[in-house]
Amino acid sequence: MNKVLRPTQQRKSKMTAPKPDAQRLTEDWWRTRIIDMKPGVIRYFGYPIEELIGRVSFAQMIWLLMRGELPTKAQGELLEAALMSAVDHGPQAPSIAIARMAATCGVGLNGALASAVNVLGDVHGGAGEQAVELYLDIARREEAGSAIDEAVKAGLEAFVAAHGKVIPGFGHRFHPVDPRSEPLLALVERAAAQGEVSGRYARIARAIEAALSSDKSKRIPMNIDGATAVIYAELEFPPPLARGLFCLSRSVGALAHAWEQTQQGGRIKGPIPREFIPSYIGPAQRAVPTSLS
Amino acid sequence: MNKVLRPTQQRKSKMTAPKPDAQRLTEDWWRTRIIDMKPGVIRYFGYPIEELIGRVSFAQMIWLLMRGELPTKAQGELLEAALMSAVDHGPQAPSIAIARMAATCGVGLNGALASAVNVLGDVHGGAGEQAVELYLDIARREEAGSAIDEAVKAGLEAFVAAHGKVIPGFGHRFHPVDPRSEPLLALVERAAAQGEVSGRYARIARAIEAALSSDKSKRIPMNIDGATAVIYAELEFPPPLARGLFCLSRSVGALAHAWEQTQQGGRIKGPIPREFIPSYIGPAQRAVPTSLS
Amino acid sequence: MNKVLRPTQQRKSKMTAPKPDAQRLTEDWWRTRIIDMKPGVIRYFGYPIEELIGRVSFAQMIWLLMRGELPTKAQGELLEAALMSAVDHGPQAPSIAIARMAATCGVGLNGALASAVNVLGDVHGGAGEQAVELYLDIARREEAGSAIDEAVKAGLEAFVAAHGKVIPGFGHRFHPVDPRSEPLLALVERAAAQGEVSGRYARIARAIEAALSSDKSKRIPMNIDGATAVIYAELEFPPPLARGLFCLSRSVGALAHAWEQTQQGGRIKGPIPREFIPSYIGPAQRAVPTSLS
Amino acid sequence: MNKVLRPTQQRKSKMTAPKPDAQRLTEDWWRTRIIDMKPGVIRYFGYPIEELIGRVSFAQMIWLLMRGELPTKAQGELLEAALMSAVDHGPQAPSIAIARMAATCGVGLNGALASAVNVLGDVHGGAGEQAVELYLDIARREEAGSAIDEAVKAGLEAFVAAHGKVIPGFGHRFHPVDPRSEPLLALVERAAAQGEVSGRYARIARAIEAALSSDKSKRIPMNIDGATAVIYAELEFPPPLARGLFCLSRSVGALAHAWEQTQQGGRIKGPIPREFIPSYIGPAQRAVPTSLS
Repeated sequence: MNKVLRPTQQRKSKMTAPKPDAQRLTEDWWRTRIIDMKPGVIRYFGYPIEELIGRVSFAQMIWLLMRGELPTKAQGELLEAALMSAVDHGPQAPSIAIARMAATCGVGLNGALASAVNVLGDVHGGAGEQAVELYLDIARREEAGSAIDEAVKAGLEAFVAAHGKVIPGFGHRFHPVDPRSEPLLALVERAAAQGEVSGRYARIARAIEAALSSDKSKRIPMNIDGATAVIYAELEFPPPLARGLFCLSRSVGALAHAWEQTQQGGRIKGPIPREFIPSYIGPAQRAVPTSLS
Repeated sequence: MNKVLRPTQQRKSKMTAPKPDAQRLTEDWWRTRIIDMKPGVIRYFGYPIEELIGRVSFAQMIWLLMRGELPTKAQGELLEAALMSAVDHGPQAPSIAIARMAATCGVGLNGALASAVNVLGDVHGGAGEQAVELYLDIARREEAGSAIDEAVKAGLEAFVAAHGKVIPGFGHRFHPVDPRSEPLLALVERAAAQGEVSGRYARIARAIEAALSSDKSKRIPMNIDGATAVIYAELEFPPPLARGLFCLSRSVGALAHAWEQTQQGGRIKGPIPREFIPSYIGPAQRAVPTSLS
Repeated sequence: MNKVLRPTQQRKSKMTAPKPDAQRLTEDWWRTRIIDMKPGVIRYFGYPIEELIGRVSFAQMIWLLMRGELPTKAQGELLEAALMSAVDHGPQAPSIAIARMAATCGVGLNGALASAVNVLGDVHGGAGEQAVELYLDIARREEAGSAIDEAVKAGLEAFVAAHGKVIPGFGHRFHPVDPRSEPLLALVERAAAQGEVSGRYARIARAIEAALSSDKSKRIPMNIDGATAVIYAELEFPPPLARGLFCLSRSVGALAHAWEQTQQGGRIKGPIPREFIPSYIGPAQRAVPTSLS
Repeated sequence: MNKVLRPTQQRKSKMTAPKPDAQRLTEDWWRTRIIDMKPGVIRYFGYPIEELIGRVSFAQMIWLLMRGELPTKAQGELLEAALMSAVDHGPQAPSIAIARMAATCGVGLNGALASAVNVLGDVHGGAGEQAVELYLDIARREEAGSAIDEAVKAGLEAFVAAHGKVIPGFGHRFHPVDPRSEPLLALVERAAAQGEVSGRYARIARAIEAALSSDKSKRIPMNIDGATAVIYAELEFPPPLARGLFCLSRSVGALAHAWEQTQQGGRIKGPIPREFIPSYIGPAQRAVPTSLS
């Protein structure tokens, strides 16, 4: 998928060079395609920083660093939307609660951000990545000749068999309809109508939504992860970067909440008011044996 | 400085409400001005998410979450520039090296990002914050009636007395001239010429640069932290957010390098090639006493 | 395996209680068997802290908190050995290099420790956990009637089929023979001879070692992860705690190195000397297009 | 204070050696007194690992790695007590809440531990370090000729002037009397009676407690941080290691709670039950301007 970054080939030719000395070995240990530095010179994938400043937005720079090329205008706009729409879902999310608690513990904003982003693991931060994988799998089934409904049915069955019944990107425990999904899909479909992206993954995601809703009495609509995954798939980001980019996006909420908490004050903020003591459900008081057997 | 977020006042009126019950207490423990959630509803500082999507860029959304209001067009563009210009300075920086090593240890990109961002502490990530504080101090001296050269001299002396000789935002151990500084300053000065920002902190920073270069035979030019600090000060971000926003920016580099390393492969990548063993400088071999005294 | 902690049952009966009020709900959200707190009272699994102090070692306390009961003397000693033997393997390990670099970045020792421990993921920190799982799988095959050699052969084949050719706990890229393995095994076998533990997992691990060495011209001996996994399996720790306990152990090395680096000084220590610049292997310099297509 | 580790001197002599080559430079970049590794050889401060296994406890190993020498039996026992007594104070502490929440987010126990330990910053984890500094300051005043009461009074005044009214190590927002303090002090005083430690810092801490209680109607008794700080000061650990060792100790509680939560199950556990929504205290709904000014 990600055809831009292919360091393996380049590396090989380097390795056929005459016996490297210690300095060469050390420098090669940290070889990179991303940044070219010399005193007074910084270039990202060949572009001098002084030419990028003032002409490239933050989101376009994110694209450049992940992909090795600059995006088209339309690609950049879709990436903006995916990044700006997932910044925060409030302090009920563990990541955000962690950012706020950390801010009262005497670590800098960097530390609050780190403890928060760290928990965007497979369960809390992985739905976008998994949804992209699901879409790609269904797309492969279509390419192999299945009609879309069959491809969706088979893709969902394969997913459930491998990972269980929670379909990433669909359903929300709080929102009956996620207000972020439809506006994001509309952006993708507009870009597809203009030939800027394929529109294929929007179709697949809508077909999944339809399949999930027909299967059950209760509708299971696409959520923010499902909708941003459509964008990431349309933009041909490899699945792990769907998680990586979500981490960048949610970092914004973590930072905002850490900062708000800093201003509200408080020391060593726990999860619940101090009046409340966690329930103890273990053994009653007992004596320590005088010596261990 | 940050007049937008002032939760204390609002909180007080809430607290004069009739005796809160347990649920109220619990919900108030996590009160926020940032996000208003109801089933099917997400609003950031009052703005419904479905109206923001497609109209607000990632950087503008970052502004909204930090400040509580949307930026002007000019403010948003300066923020874009500050964020996009500091994304990466290569794997010699410990944060980036950490991101790359982490990527080979069997943690997700979230974990690699967290270990990396975490080290953007007072020394590695704090220069921007400290530079904003220095600029604000010099501005206060000017307001109190000092001429700019005197204000700079007094501000630098006070800084050195309190924190030592490393002036944050000036000088670079690698670049004789930082190629990012001048283009960033030019953006600020253009915005100032158009009345969009004051231009005051650009002036102060240039005066610091001049003072540092006159003091010594060797020029000590403004670096990326000094230049982005000019932008953050012009945009009236409180100093700790200069660090917070730098963390968001450098997260992009950390993610890009973690991902590049993932593609290069490797398991448990250490800092130096395996052929090299760290120098041991401790005691020679000795016997463990048969029992501790 | 871990029969001590079984909160599910207890929880159920709680949930049949009459409709809980908001305070109850909040307190139950954080229910625990580990610690019982009241003003002036702290008990761990029922044992008052004032009775534990002076009578229970750090390692025995670790056992109590993980298992809910105090260990026997022999169990405590084996746990001491597993914990003390894995504390450090030098700054070539990414975790330790990270601790040292972090210590120069202006974060506290807590931050250095966090960034370091965080990377003890599936690859860098998971070998012990995976080795325990492998031993348990082979033990189940024995219980189902296989002779040990068959059980080992089948277990290894199943492991390789599922996870690839790197057998966790065996072989070392630096040590031809790991000097920690034999002394640890000897402790287990002595405890087994005294009837304190079964000795079964020592047998299984030795059989794996024999099988791996017969398969290849090159011997693949048990390493520290394989040997501590024998101890953890003998002590009936569930596999994830083999990783958790390794994290506690390696935290010691991370702390020691962070502290040594603090004393050596340095600011923003990167992975290689500043004289060396990472190799750039990307595109040559190119111009930024005047506007994105 | 910490006379064991003094790499600076040793380094100097090294640096007078003839011009180092690239390999030497690279290896020296990671020089250490802690571990000496060669293929088949691991020694900590000169002690071969195979001689340490079975003879040295986990706590004694911790001492060796921090100090460069093995402890006496009495020193080792006091360190055991300091480490085992501070392992956990329940899920109301942000560190422990974070460990539990992280465990439901799809990161390994290493990740849960990292996010938790990370927040043991100046406020949540620094009281022990600050208490050691306070004790050392008072001891220096005694050495300079002050009577203990005067030294305590002057030390407290200096502390309050520099850091504010919260005296680290004294008072507890939950326990009127901390049940851990007296048993820990008793261990120190017994060791002092046997000439194993000076007993001086126990005296100082008791004098602080007396001074704080006489100053106010409400008694402000020594807490766990004040008591373990007595031990760390008696054992001549430098203040930052008081925090570092507390991090090791509290890691045990974080691991135990992360593991208990893993067994209780749950996905993406937030700080409060889902029935409760954080209080929103920001602006009412408003329209996004059609374009930014």
